[in-house]
Amino acid sequence: MGNSFGKLFKITTYGESHGAGVGVVIDGCPAGITFDEDFIQLQLQRRKPGQSKITTQRREEDLFEVKSGVFEGVTTGMPISLFIPNSNQRSKDYSHIAEKFRPSHADYTYQEKFGVRDYRGGGRSSARETAARVAAGAVAQLLLKQYGIDIKAYVSQVGDLKLDKNYQELDLSKIDHTIVRCPDEEMAEKMIDRIDEVRKDRDTIGGVVTGVIRNVPVGLGEPVFDRLHANLGHAMLSINAVKGFEYGSGFDGVSMLGSEHNDEFYTDEEGKVRTKTNYSGGIQGGISNGEDVYFNVAFKPVATIMKDQKSIDQEGKETTVSGKGRHDPCVLPRAVPIVEAMAALVIADNILINRTRKI
Amino acid sequence: MGNSFGKLFKITTYGESHGAGVGVVIDGCPAGITFDEDFIQLQLQRRKPGQSKITTQRREEDLFEVKSGVFEGVTTGMPISLFIPNSNQRSKDYSHIAEKFRPSHADYTYQEKFGVRDYRGGGRSSARETAARVAAGAVAQLLLKQYGIDIKAYVSQVGDLKLDKNYQELDLSKIDHTIVRCPDEEMAEKMIDRIDEVRKDRDTIGGVVTGVIRNVPVGLGEPVFDRLHANLGHAMLSINAVKGFEYGSGFDGVSMLGSEHNDEFYTDEEGKVRTKTNYSGGIQGGISNGEDVYFNVAFKPVATIMKDQKSIDQEGKETTVSGKGRHDPCVLPRAVPIVEAMAALVIADNILINRTRKI
Amino acid sequence: MGNSFGKLFKITTYGESHGAGVGVVIDGCPAGITFDEDFIQLQLQRRKPGQSKITTQRREEDLFEVKSGVFEGVTTGMPISLFIPNSNQRSKDYSHIAEKFRPSHADYTYQEKFGVRDYRGGGRSSARETAARVAAGAVAQLLLKQYGIDIKAYVSQVGDLKLDKNYQELDLSKIDHTIVRCPDEEMAEKMIDRIDEVRKDRDTIGGVVTGVIRNVPVGLGEPVFDRLHANLGHAMLSINAVKGFEYGSGFDGVSMLGSEHNDEFYTDEEGKVRTKTNYSGGIQGGISNGEDVYFNVAFKPVATIMKDQKSIDQEGKETTVSGKGRHDPCVLPRAVPIVEAMAALVIADNILINRTRKI
Amino acid sequence: MGNSFGKLFKITTYGESHGAGVGVVIDGCPAGITFDEDFIQLQLQRRKPGQSKITTQRREEDLFEVKSGVFEGVTTGMPISLFIPNSNQRSKDYSHIAEKFRPSHADYTYQEKFGVRDYRGGGRSSARETAARVAAGAVAQLLLKQYGIDIKAYVSQVGDLKLDKNYQELDLSKIDHTIVRCPDEEMAEKMIDRIDEVRKDRDTIGGVVTGVIRNVPVGLGEPVFDRLHANLGHAMLSINAVKGFEYGSGFDGVSMLGSEHNDEFYTDEEGKVRTKTNYSGGIQGGISNGEDVYFNVAFKPVATIMKDQKSIDQEGKETTVSGKGRHDPCVLPRAVPIVEAMAALVIADNILINRTRKI
Repeated sequence: MGNSFGKLFKITTYGESHGAGVGVVIDGCPAGITFDEDFIQLQLQRRKPGQSKITTQRREEDLFEVKSGVFEGVTTGMPISLFIPNSNQRSKDYSHIAEKFRPSHADYTYQEKFGVRDYRGGGRSSARETAARVAAGAVAQLLLKQYGIDIKAYVSQVGDLKLDKNYQELDLSKIDHTIVRCPDEEMAEKMIDRIDEVRKDRDTIGGVVTGVIRNVPVGLGEPVFDRLHANLGHAMLSINAVKGFEYGSGFDGVSMLGSEHNDEFYTDEEGKVRTKTNYSGGIQGGISNGEDVYFNVAFKPVATIMKDQKSIDQEGKETTVSGKGRHDPCVLPRAVPIVEAMAALVIADNILINRTRKI
Repeated sequence: MGNSFGKLFKITTYGESHGAGVGVVIDGCPAGITFDEDFIQLQLQRRKPGQSKITTQRREEDLFEVKSGVFEGVTTGMPISLFIPNSNQRSKDYSHIAEKFRPSHADYTYQEKFGVRDYRGGGRSSARETAARVAAGAVAQLLLKQYGIDIKAYVSQVGDLKLDKNYQELDLSKIDHTIVRCPDEEMAEKMIDRIDEVRKDRDTIGGVVTGVIRNVPVGLGEPVFDRLHANLGHAMLSINAVKGFEYGSGFDGVSMLGSEHNDEFYTDEEGKVRTKTNYSGGIQGGISNGEDVYFNVAFKPVATIMKDQKSIDQEGKETTVSGKGRHDPCVLPRAVPIVEAMAALVIADNILINRTRKI
Repeated sequence: MGNSFGKLFKITTYGESHGAGVGVVIDGCPAGITFDEDFIQLQLQRRKPGQSKITTQRREEDLFEVKSGVFEGVTTGMPISLFIPNSNQRSKDYSHIAEKFRPSHADYTYQEKFGVRDYRGGGRSSARETAARVAAGAVAQLLLKQYGIDIKAYVSQVGDLKLDKNYQELDLSKIDHTIVRCPDEEMAEKMIDRIDEVRKDRDTIGGVVTGVIRNVPVGLGEPVFDRLHANLGHAMLSINAVKGFEYGSGFDGVSMLGSEHNDEFYTDEEGKVRTKTNYSGGIQGGISNGEDVYFNVAFKPVATIMKDQKSIDQEGKETTVSGKGRHDPCVLPRAVPIVEAMAALVIADNILINRTRKI
Repeated sequence: MGNSFGKLFKITTYGESHGAGVGVVIDGCPAGITFDEDFIQLQLQRRKPGQSKITTQRREEDLFEVKSGVFEGVTTGMPISLFIPNSNQRSKDYSHIAEKFRPSHADYTYQEKFGVRDYRGGGRSSARETAARVAAGAVAQLLLKQYGIDIKAYVSQVGDLKLDKNYQELDLSKIDHTIVRCPDEEMAEKMIDRIDEVRKDRDTIGGVVTGVIRNVPVGLGEPVFDRLHANLGHAMLSINAVKGFEYGSGFDGVSMLGSEHNDEFYTDEEGKVRTKTNYSGGIQGGISNGEDVYFNVAFKPVATIMKDQKSIDQEGKETTVSGKGRHDPCVLPRAVPIVEAMAALVIADNILINRTRKI
């Protein structure tokens, strides 16, 4: 239970932080897609640890292996199995927490729920699992490219540092120009400094990733429980450390009047139905209307800090947890490709579902 | 596709605003639950239109009928079918929009996606569908009562009027003391005035519902995609007009440092594992830890306003949509039981799933 | 759990023999199908009790009501809810078995599994539930008609009386010419006599229904667990009283040599790929190959007999169960539309799925 | 689509005959099961090729690797990923069929459905995929052992050679005493001779595997579509080359009268509810009643024969397919562990589901 996502473009991930590796099986990917391995590897590279001074210094190559579902460079419609071996595990870094519960980690809840846990590096609860999502999401993006759909995510907030421009005022081609993945270079600079400061202070900090999906066909999303934004929200909230999701006008929209918030329809020069504003975030009645879909994802500060913290052990006795190992002071830069991957999975799934809804 | 929710406590809703009625089939409700019809009817009453001056003046009795799954007052484990006939339909109120797209409604997207739509009252996209959810959620609550789990929701914001107390500072037994369902009487007064003002101005306004789940057993939620909060988020985002979801520290938590945000474990006098703070919102690693689960749900202003609006018709030509009929100036007070219902469905589902996770 | 069937053309049935009625919700039916109510009613008529001297003399009109999903005579893509009220219930016919377990019925197993059961007429385990399937299957057939797919079933065996002609030697337009629904009139005569004899003897008898699906598009069925015949088998084995399923050469095929059994490919005059023989039953590798799909479904003799039988009561004490009420001496004639319905549901589901398998 | 089986004990298989290997992800296996690797390997050994003179002479070691879900010898509740690398591939054996359709194989249907196919060794349609099922089924059996449930399968028919004893007259501990896996040594001898004869004649032959599940708890199986036997039938019909499934009295039962076929209840000395006969095959109303569950599975003769056969190529032109490579003259002996595995998966799944059905 719980390790699959999607209905028709369905993925199942497996693997632990310090086991053999992490992997994903994609069941439902249509046959006939050119399988661009370089693109998949590139996305994994954007997520991998050790890519800059503001991410963890752990080094994982995150090279993926194709185990099935591809023949002579093309998807065959059979399940696609991708595996990413773990390479740089220092399990002994974790022996100190084998019997302690790290604050705001999954140690306690996994132990209680399952009666047993692979404590090494957080086991299954580790963000290492998201490597499998990024690989699967990259395959979904190969499908989306056939439709010209473009997905971009970027860091719009770190701590209090919040971009005051919306996505339309930014040059999204610049996202990867800075190590923090904020396309506004001035703000990026500040964010990097802030993260570095926090890192030196052996602490961590949160932030917001904004996602934008452009060129979405009209008609994606299923009434009434699988509204497109409900699927997107589910997807984003399933990412480690995420605490909130909003789309379109989001939480700010609640203060608006209906007369302000309603998006007026018009027909553009090409005869296409458009809206003048887009508070709806490209989704009306749970179904995409052809405008840009945009959303925000809130990430809490990473739970693993290098400072000593009070906690309890498995017997319930007081103890101290000392931060060890190599960790991210801020998960945001590496979260960008994960957000893109999850968005791609939702859109790919809905494209396939939508093929079945009319006679 | 899309009209079912849940895996083991699974509901499927059907019905349109101006058809025969709305209904729900619950498949997976355990046998042996005393079927408290009064409780179910009470929840429906809290959602029904026409209950106060700040809700729509439409009158629907919303009396439900049990079609199956209950025998001699007890659930039998068979599918429970509940039906709520439509009684007060004025379909002619809608003839004016048969060929027009109302701004920020589902008219355009349904038409494009399905090639046909029941335009009367929004058809399936109408919030009338949520009556079926409330009925199903009430059945879920009957299961939760067996576990002593308590679910409460209340209005914490209307427009700019935002409660500055958190749920622990409020007396949640007072939620239904005011027609706006805000347990703080002073704020409630202001909210009611604000809604009334907006109503007179033939406009609408949004707001926030806060949900609190207390006495949650440890262990609910499934790694990695069905984290408890991802399921809750999905559930809430599937409600009409919802634009955002956050739990625990939510969007505000992103500005915190890890050392501030981490919830320190301790063992209380009864030997129970607790946390000193609860920024985690009762969920760690996607699994409930026994602390209160709390969350916010953002609702946009209702799209139907009584003012004239520019729009286009099905041929793409410019037109004017004039508000008619009887509508809610603010959906929040009636949204409270819907939020409770969806939360109950998520928790009930996870309780059943959790029974299968250990040997 | 268990009351839904299908993945994309998904049905959920509910209702008991002596409750308010039986119903079905179809989620996933494409929009735009002309909703031929007469055809649906006709299929229900073929299943309903009391249609001839060899079926039960209970009379149920089995008139269905459309609760949702259809607007101005066309499916809208929304869930289609159909309800068939129970009309001719004589619950007191069953009071004698409230605390007894009828042999080879579901009384004991339901009681043990759920701790409670609606004993009236077998409750949910009654074949009355299949009325909902027939209604849903008729809707599926409306979809299949768009593809020119033709589904026929007929009685090929009653007790020892077994047709020695295969479906190609029969005139399938004659199925409904006899009350036993065997298209060979001579054999039909014998079958009717046999059933009548058994009925007079207050006993029951089994038989076989043969199904044929013609004009099936190539490509239906999903490797590896949802082979088309695995789905068909699941569907048929879910019908009350079914004990076996075979397709193509079936159990007889096991005695053949590979060189005899293999179906040789050739290209016909129209350039279509065909096979000379069809031991494969129109399915190769789990996927339809365009040849006729044919199969047999074995039904045991109905468990309810009018003779006295030894059994036990709920306390485990010996007792006698006396047959009462109005029952079928042979379920076969009424099973024909049920087999057709289930086949239609499987094919409709696979048609939708198949739309998603290629780029 | 189609590569997953089960609802709560859910498996997803992947892999092709001549790719990197075959694998399975099990999602939903409860935590806390001692992971007996030797038992899993043993079951794989019973399926692997090259084990005797009457199976294919291909040699695959079929050693499996655990990629996730097991920690310190115990299942953790996380997805269990098992991988079996392919070792002895002679892809060039298949180059001759790259553009030809082998009769009664999946070549044509895969090509038509997906527009592309991995032709090497049949790719995904190869029975090699069943190695993954056997591994997963062995894990399911580890769960069943906790309940004392015993699953056995054996060859009861090869061609015309049909055992005239039922399972109760046989010593099921002797199944593996002969290479054909028939527990009756005299019949086994005949079967082996028959298969050897067929093999020398470069042909193939079919047969029947009988399965027996003993010590089944009362209550497994879900009304109305997931009757225990419907799940078993689905499982068995999803195995390569299977043409039919029957349980209990099966096809023979159709000739019986109700008064003969009904299984009379009684209470045994230990106060346990039993039936005197067991034509029901241990399942009543789709739910296990505690008696032995038994069933037959019909396998057609293997499609790959060493003789020349007429066929067509991808252009539709006439051609000859010549048998090459190393193939099984009769799939039955190796099918035994596959039938056991699929039965174990169905029972494990139903045990978990059944935990959720009562309050």
